[in-house]
Amino acid sequence: MEQVLSNNLVISIDAMGGDNSPRVVIEGLAIAAQKNADARFLLYGDEQQVKALLKNYPTLSKVCEVRHASEVVHNEDKPSAVIRNRNTSMFMAINAVKQGEAQAVVSAGNTGALMAISKLTLKTIQKIHRPAIVTIMPHRTGKYVMLDLGANTECNSLNLSEFALMGNIFAKHALGISRPRVALLNIGAEEMKGKEEIHEAAKIIRKAKLDIDFIGYIEPHEIPEGKADVIVTDGFTGNIALKSIEGTAKLVVRLMKDAVKKSFIAKFGLPFMFGVGMNIKKTMDPRLYNGAMLVGLNGLTVKSHGGTDALGYSVAVGNAINLVRQQFVPSIKEELETVDLDSLSEEILYDSY
Amino acid sequence: MEQVLSNNLVISIDAMGGDNSPRVVIEGLAIAAQKNADARFLLYGDEQQVKALLKNYPTLSKVCEVRHASEVVHNEDKPSAVIRNRNTSMFMAINAVKQGEAQAVVSAGNTGALMAISKLTLKTIQKIHRPAIVTIMPHRTGKYVMLDLGANTECNSLNLSEFALMGNIFAKHALGISRPRVALLNIGAEEMKGKEEIHEAAKIIRKAKLDIDFIGYIEPHEIPEGKADVIVTDGFTGNIALKSIEGTAKLVVRLMKDAVKKSFIAKFGLPFMFGVGMNIKKTMDPRLYNGAMLVGLNGLTVKSHGGTDALGYSVAVGNAINLVRQQFVPSIKEELETVDLDSLSEEILYDSY
Repeated sequence: MEQVLSNNLVISIDAMGGDNSPRVVIEGLAIAAQKNADARFLLYGDEQQVKALLKNYPTLSKVCEVRHASEVVHNEDKPSAVIRNRNTSMFMAINAVKQGEAQAVVSAGNTGALMAISKLTLKTIQKIHRPAIVTIMPHRTGKYVMLDLGANTECNSLNLSEFALMGNIFAKHALGISRPRVALLNIGAEEMKGKEEIHEAAKIIRKAKLDIDFIGYIEPHEIPEGKADVIVTDGFTGNIALKSIEGTAKLVVRLMKDAVKKSFIAKFGLPFMFGVGMNIKKTMDPRLYNGAMLVGLNGLTVKSHGGTDALGYSVAVGNAINLVRQQFVPSIKEELETVDLDSLSEEILYDSY
Repeated sequence: MEQVLSNNLVISIDAMGGDNSPRVVIEGLAIAAQKNADARFLLYGDEQQVKALLKNYPTLSKVCEVRHASEVVHNEDKPSAVIRNRNTSMFMAINAVKQGEAQAVVSAGNTGALMAISKLTLKTIQKIHRPAIVTIMPHRTGKYVMLDLGANTECNSLNLSEFALMGNIFAKHALGISRPRVALLNIGAEEMKGKEEIHEAAKIIRKAKLDIDFIGYIEPHEIPEGKADVIVTDGFTGNIALKSIEGTAKLVVRLMKDAVKKSFIAKFGLPFMFGVGMNIKKTMDPRLYNGAMLVGLNGLTVKSHGGTDALGYSVAVGNAINLVRQQFVPSIKEELETVDLDSLSEEILYDSY
């Protein structure tokens, strides 16, 4: 079965998730399909709507199979209210991964519901206590990954150590870095700075002698300099850092636009600056970093931003395809077989008393 | 005594703190003195060195009194090792505020030691459990304040509520906003998102019917839009957010410079863009936001960045002068007289069970 799957790259799609679905979903898939001729898509959603849209994309249509889902998870739905509804496009798309019909699922729908249904359906990989949300971000000269970004508001030292392990494997596959530098996010470089669980995680990672290039603590302002490839933190802190970064990047670009608008002279300089603008855009465009991955489960769930456009959606699908090609899920399962952090964590905690 | 103090604006200065002290300190004071003719400075440090530097600034010299301090707190000193050494320039400068000789102290030295000695010497204002570090930051159309930025790694709901109170009063004085909008930093707008202590703090603030314009939760990416004037958070999260913002602003500017350097055409546009660059610089220049204030004590401690230059140092001193002029410490003591969050907090916590 595994052999068949790896030769048949199949991504299941929640066609109804997101602000302008299923239109943006189909437009995004068209872009992704063009770049990935070997990918096939299982689309779950309103059959009539989806098929009508697909008519405009004959090439895409050839690699799509549409399956009717009678219900939709809405953004305002509480995860607990929809988690056991097997008729939603979201549930059906995730379930396709569980059934082995697809190797990854992409949805732009309700984040909480997507995480909850994914956890319940795909289950955590043995030895991993909590899955984490990871995303790919730009630094000055390349890219890095950060996790967790919100799956777990509170994390203990064992959770953080597991995120370090998973992030390391993720970065190898997603960024193609053979030996990623892994760091714990903290508010100082000194051993005593920050929180107890961070100090303990550092001890666990060091003592476990994992096959990881663990470089210790990193502070947020060092991230853009490219000092680490994997940034490990709890879901609350990661979410704060991510949104601070996104908000500030937007602010600076906005301030520039405001300043150019106000300046008569600057307008004459604009044509010369076109290339520079494009360059910055190419590095910082949030659409190019769309797609947060839920890792640590027996299958891969990719969450697209709900308000993204076709290009952004295609990037999320591209991430899914890339990680399936790189055999991310089989690899993480295999690599984790050899590690037992649980007993180590108990030992470390015992040592601290 | 209070009357005398308010007519005599005196700032005590740790002349030996910071990377290039006492040179940068004296150069910075020269700028600050030019802008504030009524301010006087009590300088603590190596008398010979300081007096030699002051010779170059005759106008500044007239408003300075130099007092010899035989020892210096170094950056690598542990706070616990220096906290009771009464011979350091840092201790003596802080002690001048306690003795009523100065109304605020400025130091560019070891942050941990500065906070520890300030707490021990100046003591927390009655009814406040923990002091907080607050700073002034730019958003798209104005400024906001954020606290705590690192004085307290872990905070409970009562601490956060007190920060909201103090931040409100601080913003009135530092930003001149008559009714600041106060928000709790969180990872979502919904009541259930984020951490328990944040939810409880929101309950306490609402139930206390404080004279505060409390607008609920704010997410980091909303800050640059200017949605709130006071951002309240624990010291760990605040430090992460602050450093993420600083790092990203620097990254975007760096990317632009890199792109211009690489582009032959862009160089021709540069002269037109000079005004825009200056405009951004004026808004985002970290030196213009130098000076973190420790609030909640019987006196005001201002921490300058250790690596700043004369302009940056002068901004930190300017903050101290401005807050003394605005009677910040007497005001916060007076306003807090009428509030009793302690009993309210117990009630709320009791309610939650």
